[in-house]
Amino acid sequence: MKFISEPTRSINGNVDEAELKDEPMIHPSSNVMTACVGVNTRIWQYVVVLEGARIGADVNVCAHCYIEDDVVIGDRVTVKSGVYLWNGVRLENDVFIGPNVTFTNDKYPRSKGYPQDFIATVVEKGASVGAGAVLLPGITIGQGAMVGAGAVVTKSVPPYAIVAGSPARITGYVDGESLGSIETTDQSGFSNDAVSKLGVGGVTLHRLKIVHDMRGHLGVGEFTRDIPFSPKRYFFVFNVPSEKTRGEHAHHKCHQFLVCLVGGCAVVVDDGESRREVLLNSPDLGICLPPLTWSTQYKYSRDAVLLVLASDYYDADDYIRNYRDFLNIIGDRKKT
Amino acid sequence: MKFISEPTRSINGNVDEAELKDEPMIHPSSNVMTACVGVNTRIWQYVVVLEGARIGADVNVCAHCYIEDDVVIGDRVTVKSGVYLWNGVRLENDVFIGPNVTFTNDKYPRSKGYPQDFIATVVEKGASVGAGAVLLPGITIGQGAMVGAGAVVTKSVPPYAIVAGSPARITGYVDGESLGSIETTDQSGFSNDAVSKLGVGGVTLHRLKIVHDMRGHLGVGEFTRDIPFSPKRYFFVFNVPSEKTRGEHAHHKCHQFLVCLVGGCAVVVDDGESRREVLLNSPDLGICLPPLTWSTQYKYSRDAVLLVLASDYYDADDYIRNYRDFLNIIGDRKKT
Amino acid sequence: MKFISEPTRSINGNVDEAELKDEPMIHPSSNVMTACVGVNTRIWQYVVVLEGARIGADVNVCAHCYIEDDVVIGDRVTVKSGVYLWNGVRLENDVFIGPNVTFTNDKYPRSKGYPQDFIATVVEKGASVGAGAVLLPGITIGQGAMVGAGAVVTKSVPPYAIVAGSPARITGYVDGESLGSIETTDQSGFSNDAVSKLGVGGVTLHRLKIVHDMRGHLGVGEFTRDIPFSPKRYFFVFNVPSEKTRGEHAHHKCHQFLVCLVGGCAVVVDDGESRREVLLNSPDLGICLPPLTWSTQYKYSRDAVLLVLASDYYDADDYIRNYRDFLNIIGDRKKT
Amino acid sequence: MKFISEPTRSINGNVDEAELKDEPMIHPSSNVMTACVGVNTRIWQYVVVLEGARIGADVNVCAHCYIEDDVVIGDRVTVKSGVYLWNGVRLENDVFIGPNVTFTNDKYPRSKGYPQDFIATVVEKGASVGAGAVLLPGITIGQGAMVGAGAVVTKSVPPYAIVAGSPARITGYVDGESLGSIETTDQSGFSNDAVSKLGVGGVTLHRLKIVHDMRGHLGVGEFTRDIPFSPKRYFFVFNVPSEKTRGEHAHHKCHQFLVCLVGGCAVVVDDGESRREVLLNSPDLGICLPPLTWSTQYKYSRDAVLLVLASDYYDADDYIRNYRDFLNIIGDRKKT
Amino acid sequence: MKFISEPTRSINGNVDEAELKDEPMIHPSSNVMTACVGVNTRIWQYVVVLEGARIGADVNVCAHCYIEDDVVIGDRVTVKSGVYLWNGVRLENDVFIGPNVTFTNDKYPRSKGYPQDFIATVVEKGASVGAGAVLLPGITIGQGAMVGAGAVVTKSVPPYAIVAGSPARITGYVDGESLGSIETTDQSGFSNDAVSKLGVGGVTLHRLKIVHDMRGHLGVGEFTRDIPFSPKRYFFVFNVPSEKTRGEHAHHKCHQFLVCLVGGCAVVVDDGESRREVLLNSPDLGICLPPLTWSTQYKYSRDAVLLVLASDYYDADDYIRNYRDFLNIIGDRKKT
Amino acid sequence: MKFISEPTRSINGNVDEAELKDEPMIHPSSNVMTACVGVNTRIWQYVVVLEGARIGADVNVCAHCYIEDDVVIGDRVTVKSGVYLWNGVRLENDVFIGPNVTFTNDKYPRSKGYPQDFIATVVEKGASVGAGAVLLPGITIGQGAMVGAGAVVTKSVPPYAIVAGSPARITGYVDGESLGSIETTDQSGFSNDAVSKLGVGGVTLHRLKIVHDMRGHLGVGEFTRDIPFSPKRYFFVFNVPSEKTRGEHAHHKCHQFLVCLVGGCAVVVDDGESRREVLLNSPDLGICLPPLTWSTQYKYSRDAVLLVLASDYYDADDYIRNYRDFLNIIGDRKKT
Repeated sequence: MKFISEPTRSINGNVDEAELKDEPMIHPSSNVMTACVGVNTRIWQYVVVLEGARIGADVNVCAHCYIEDDVVIGDRVTVKSGVYLWNGVRLENDVFIGPNVTFTNDKYPRSKGYPQDFIATVVEKGASVGAGAVLLPGITIGQGAMVGAGAVVTKSVPPYAIVAGSPARITGYVDGESLGSIETTDQSGFSNDAVSKLGVGGVTLHRLKIVHDMRGHLGVGEFTRDIPFSPKRYFFVFNVPSEKTRGEHAHHKCHQFLVCLVGGCAVVVDDGESRREVLLNSPDLGICLPPLTWSTQYKYSRDAVLLVLASDYYDADDYIRNYRDFLNIIGDRKKT
Repeated sequence: MKFISEPTRSINGNVDEAELKDEPMIHPSSNVMTACVGVNTRIWQYVVVLEGARIGADVNVCAHCYIEDDVVIGDRVTVKSGVYLWNGVRLENDVFIGPNVTFTNDKYPRSKGYPQDFIATVVEKGASVGAGAVLLPGITIGQGAMVGAGAVVTKSVPPYAIVAGSPARITGYVDGESLGSIETTDQSGFSNDAVSKLGVGGVTLHRLKIVHDMRGHLGVGEFTRDIPFSPKRYFFVFNVPSEKTRGEHAHHKCHQFLVCLVGGCAVVVDDGESRREVLLNSPDLGICLPPLTWSTQYKYSRDAVLLVLASDYYDADDYIRNYRDFLNIIGDRKKT
Repeated sequence: MKFISEPTRSINGNVDEAELKDEPMIHPSSNVMTACVGVNTRIWQYVVVLEGARIGADVNVCAHCYIEDDVVIGDRVTVKSGVYLWNGVRLENDVFIGPNVTFTNDKYPRSKGYPQDFIATVVEKGASVGAGAVLLPGITIGQGAMVGAGAVVTKSVPPYAIVAGSPARITGYVDGESLGSIETTDQSGFSNDAVSKLGVGGVTLHRLKIVHDMRGHLGVGEFTRDIPFSPKRYFFVFNVPSEKTRGEHAHHKCHQFLVCLVGGCAVVVDDGESRREVLLNSPDLGICLPPLTWSTQYKYSRDAVLLVLASDYYDADDYIRNYRDFLNIIGDRKKT
Repeated sequence: MKFISEPTRSINGNVDEAELKDEPMIHPSSNVMTACVGVNTRIWQYVVVLEGARIGADVNVCAHCYIEDDVVIGDRVTVKSGVYLWNGVRLENDVFIGPNVTFTNDKYPRSKGYPQDFIATVVEKGASVGAGAVLLPGITIGQGAMVGAGAVVTKSVPPYAIVAGSPARITGYVDGESLGSIETTDQSGFSNDAVSKLGVGGVTLHRLKIVHDMRGHLGVGEFTRDIPFSPKRYFFVFNVPSEKTRGEHAHHKCHQFLVCLVGGCAVVVDDGESRREVLLNSPDLGICLPPLTWSTQYKYSRDAVLLVLASDYYDADDYIRNYRDFLNIIGDRKKT
Repeated sequence: MKFISEPTRSINGNVDEAELKDEPMIHPSSNVMTACVGVNTRIWQYVVVLEGARIGADVNVCAHCYIEDDVVIGDRVTVKSGVYLWNGVRLENDVFIGPNVTFTNDKYPRSKGYPQDFIATVVEKGASVGAGAVLLPGITIGQGAMVGAGAVVTKSVPPYAIVAGSPARITGYVDGESLGSIETTDQSGFSNDAVSKLGVGGVTLHRLKIVHDMRGHLGVGEFTRDIPFSPKRYFFVFNVPSEKTRGEHAHHKCHQFLVCLVGGCAVVVDDGESRREVLLNSPDLGICLPPLTWSTQYKYSRDAVLLVLASDYYDADDYIRNYRDFLNIIGDRKKT
Repeated sequence: MKFISEPTRSINGNVDEAELKDEPMIHPSSNVMTACVGVNTRIWQYVVVLEGARIGADVNVCAHCYIEDDVVIGDRVTVKSGVYLWNGVRLENDVFIGPNVTFTNDKYPRSKGYPQDFIATVVEKGASVGAGAVLLPGITIGQGAMVGAGAVVTKSVPPYAIVAGSPARITGYVDGESLGSIETTDQSGFSNDAVSKLGVGGVTLHRLKIVHDMRGHLGVGEFTRDIPFSPKRYFFVFNVPSEKTRGEHAHHKCHQFLVCLVGGCAVVVDDGESRREVLLNSPDLGICLPPLTWSTQYKYSRDAVLLVLASDYYDADDYIRNYRDFLNIIGDRKKT
């Protein structure tokens, strides 16, 4: 282990990467008790690391941080200044923790009253937590997700979601390729063809007929004609609190057709490679999800009624509920 | 023709029916120019009947009425005092016209400006028009319907409907057997069985599963399981003005399943013999209409969304849109 | 009985009263079969009166009317043209029936289908029914009430109420002395004294303290201080449909204090001689009703909550529910 | 005077006009006491006309009517059956009164209590009153106006207005040339030109610029550029009850520019020859009224705010408030 | 004073308590200038404590903290990392301050502009302030209260309240015994007995009669029967902003009866030993508070109207407004 | 440079200013690499300052701060504990940064993914950022502005604005002289004179006539009479999201007259020396802004419609959009 004694440079940037080879570098003003620090990792001024902590390679821990014993940090993680990682925190590879981000591990803290087990907080691969955010105990920040600066995160964040506010709500999703935020496209952005491809797996958009007359409005869809399967089941979703998400799963076999009869909601579809968000905000716009499409619905308007017609009866085994499993299945398919 | 000269009795009632035999009786104070008056018909004081009018048997025309040339009155009709029947009025058998009921035959009347044809008004078999009602030109009051006292009727009234107000709205339907008003039954009046018979033809009520969770509510139905057919088509009805009716037809072959996802509406079902009204006001209540069920939907709440799943594609020839045709088809079926 | 053969004059007006002495006058064009017609009563052109009808003195029946057997008309009644009085109609003394007023006696009329008993309609002493009004069967128009022209009256009208519209709603009350409509006084019309007399019996208005602070508003009343009795009971009235009236009774012994905590309602108070209407539309305005005050509450706003504090427990015998009984009790008191 | 004794024919229609020459014809069953009846006028069965009534030429009074002394009827008037004309009624030339129309002449009628003067009701030239309508006392039905069947008219009706309902509201205006109802044109029906002529006098429509940005919307108008005068005064109208009309006047000299900033209202413009109705329902639509344009605004939405910019200060003498005066001034202009 | 030089362990937990005896332990990397540090207190890395600060016994100050001169910390207090205690902060015994909690002492801070006196912030006995919370100057966090992570606290927090959000609102109360959050019980959780004991002192719940009829709803209560005292005063509370609390006091002698006539609010009752929260959300549910019951009302719905009937006139001396005084009085009573 | 070795005292206050002369003082526990530190500046414990940072005179950097290379700090700035200043931060003279304030310089931070340029954050002269606030990248905090404790600032803050909340909204403005918050004055606080001076430059308030009648309300203003210029242009602003501000500019020549026809908004006027806020919440209150008045409008109610009448056509060159330019122009005027 080599201690840094020369004047440090910007922790964000332009250190000459060449001179950082194998040895972790630890600033002499710091108090690092663990021996488990990966290659090329740098720990800066006034940092405390307790004996049991495990820190990966190529990690950057900025000045004024504190890391307890039961903490695990992956490779290529950045921890900015003023971050205190308590027992139970897990930061996976490529995670970014902004300055003054606050972790917790006790729901109802009382001085000298310790819970039996500290509640773990997991920040999954590639996720970023913005400056000054506060994370309540027991939360998982999903793969690639992004927590906005100053957010107070009171429940787990799904993969690739963007959250902000106090309490934090999902405000969007991260684009698959660019890792920037993806724009929602509302129906005015689509062609008027009866059926058009969205560019994510086999997902199709469907323009449906709406007939207006003085006695009210009538919307129509025909199975195996407008909609490419014969339904065995319908369900509809309503009274969804506006900050809630639904879906967040894929199917092995089942096709689904979604149409928002009242109000609107956003549907994010993901084939494991690209992701796109569609705003179903008119009863003449349907979306057809083939099997192996990961889909999330959110941004429900207060009055939204989402009708779903499904090609199969309910079968718990047909659901893929874990995004990593989904990626694995997609990967396996491709190989074959 | 015999004129009545003895003191008259209540025109509503208890005249000794025995003494009314064949001859129509016309009060000498009246001015009746037509010869076409049926047996047992009575015409009372100060009535004017023009030469071309045709009046059936067993009719009662009370004092102070006026009947123009191009008027046809069926058998067993009652016309109370202060009623003026203009050219174009047709009263079918068993009709009741209350006192001071006002007929019209010109939409934009101007003095000395006559429309090319006077617009006909038809009161169908067995209908009643309450006292003081006003009927706009060109209206048909359907078979067995009842117009409330003081109503201003601005459009046609379907068979067996009850209307009231200014302008008149449908407020209910007449019971098939008793000719009294039928009560609407809301879902709390039904059994909790998954499927129950309503007692009108093969109409069945269906209790559907609703799952509530923190992320919103979910309603489910399964085809050929919960719902006794496989749908070829769905449609949904929304933005229905509260005073409108929809339906008012039967199908030759198509089965339909109705569920009101949002808000509520009333469904009147009629198998040609009995009639019943059901309030679909909860998404866990569906109703299944087999072929040859005459059905009307009305009393839509402002926010109602009625989902209909149909066993067949749209086929104009499958619709029976005229109630009399429907009765005839039902009748033919019974004979065979 | 004397028949009028000279040219008639305005039935509304300026006939030389001197020449109308004892004999009823009946126009020769009329067909009057009853012998029961009071002195000075005039019956004009083309009127039909059946044999059983009883008509009082000083009555005026205008042209084109019809009166059935089971009809009783009091003294000094006016019946304008185009009015047909069916079996069951009772017009008490001093009643005015406008032109084209329509009476009914059968709720669900069908031709040739008669109800077992015709439903009686009573127009009480001094009431007026405006031109073109329609009265549904079974209604009582209370003493001194006034039915607006064109109203469709679907339920009974309390004493001295003014009703209008289709269906008719109470829109005000008639002033006790002038028989004109009385104005509602809202709180801005009252003095700011803590207690002030209203000028109807011992009824008092009370200004109450309302304290506003940032945590909300607080209203206060103190018994035997602000409010001149100690309550044994409270009750509150809410969810009152805006067209409903409540109260319409007096108490023998009980004092009541009324304050409208939310929204507003009008309170009509009547000591048997004068009547006044107060709008309780602010929680700082209370009204205290001593015993033997006839009171009605109406014009409830949709959100009104009326709190009543009563000096006695509920006792059915303490209620005077009939206005005539109330007047009698008041009269008896005065004598003694 | 000649009495009709032959069987009568339809009073609406096809009587051989040749045989109706000079003499009025009065049915022998009627009781007509006035000598003042114009040429070609026909009075049918069971009609009563008192001595003082004056009836014009070419009038048709159908069976079962009653006409008091202080009544004046112009030429070419039609009075259908069941109409009773009380003292104070004035029917100008070309008026149509439908069957069972009810007139009144006393606001708070009481039996034997007569008002000092009966309140006059005037139906102006060419107006029509639909069947079964009720007219409260003291009302004027303006020139060419049309009262819908069953309406209860509680206040005066402006020239050419169409009213309906209980109480009656203005629902439209009559087209100047065809005397049919005129359609309202909303802004989607207009060209997108910055300025376009409406075809009524010099009235112009103006498309205004609206700029939308994230900080809200901005509408702009420039004087002497977009708007052809420089304003000396602005005023705005708001909180207009939806059933009210405003305007109903023309100006001698003042130009006005109207734009509805919030909500919408309809503007009827009339140059004395043609009439058109425009719906101002968007802040980018203005209308410019040159002098001598008769204009009415109505159908205000609940939230409407109408901004008016005027070329002159307020001057009471600049207003023409009576439609007949307006027509005279227009007429005088043309001559010169 | 002894300095810690051995590797530190988790500051949250499992240090061998046996080895912590009398001496405070101060990490050598810290800069502690006060001599006033209690026994067993530990001060960790990079902490600054100015000369005037007073720190109690058994306190734990984690790494990276800063404590100014005019700061007093009681016994058994925990201060987590990244907390800066400015002049004027008082932490009573058993307080927990989470990581990155931010204190302030100047309302409108300007560089180089100091207020005359820094505003004190007091965290009372046993209270906890969650991670990342921000406390505005001059606030008192009441005994046993709990501030949620990330809350921005803009005003004082009552004893045992739980607050969260930005700005912080009361979301619940802490249970007296378990120090967990207490659940609100709504009326469906109570027995239907007319009167039932709540288990907190003598507090009783009362089921009241509600009569529904077509003219509206009526709720009734009778004094000395339903309600165990005779009222001398009523007051009602309305227009309470939803985030406000009211009450927060006890009475020496006065009994109170509370019923929420419209909407709902939560009532927390506390007899000094146990605490319970009741949702008064129906006008048929009353709660009777005997003297010496500490009570708070909050969670007012927007439309709530809370009626309170009190057994005594207003007397400022009857109020116990300080929770500690209340506990003392309760304690004194028990002794005697 | 002189290092401080004696025990430090309160950083907020009462250090003997006499002993702070020319030399900056740097605590020996700190790691300060720049040589660019102004006179009298103090840098306290455990502070890291990188080599490129430039720090002005009389600055106070409290314990536990971190300052990167590309940071510039003016004179008389205070930086409280726990503040980390990243590349791109600029603090102008007299700025106050509260404890735990969090700066950011990357919108979508990812570990090991650096943006091409870090986004600058500028805190202008005399502004204060309250404790615990979070500033998103790229924001400018305007001169003299004040960011409330705990605010999450997502966009730039105008000069002298006060912002609070998450996300931060403008809640008020700072008073020009006292630098305290200025109170909004609503119309009830103004005289009833037709015109009154506000005390800020030549700004005048105008009482306008509002006429209420049964047909709605009418507001009037007359140019060159009520309003001291003749308009060449009108515009109106509506649909302004409640958190938005508009205006924020002055004019060289144009006069403007503002009246809020519907709803309300606050207008802040500033003549470069004094500032005042007026609530335009009634259509009878107008405000006239002469040239060289800096004005901002905010606190728009949801339904606000603000009408502006301007003395000139739109001319981009007439706008002064930068507050510093405005101050300079005002200053130049004064000199001449």
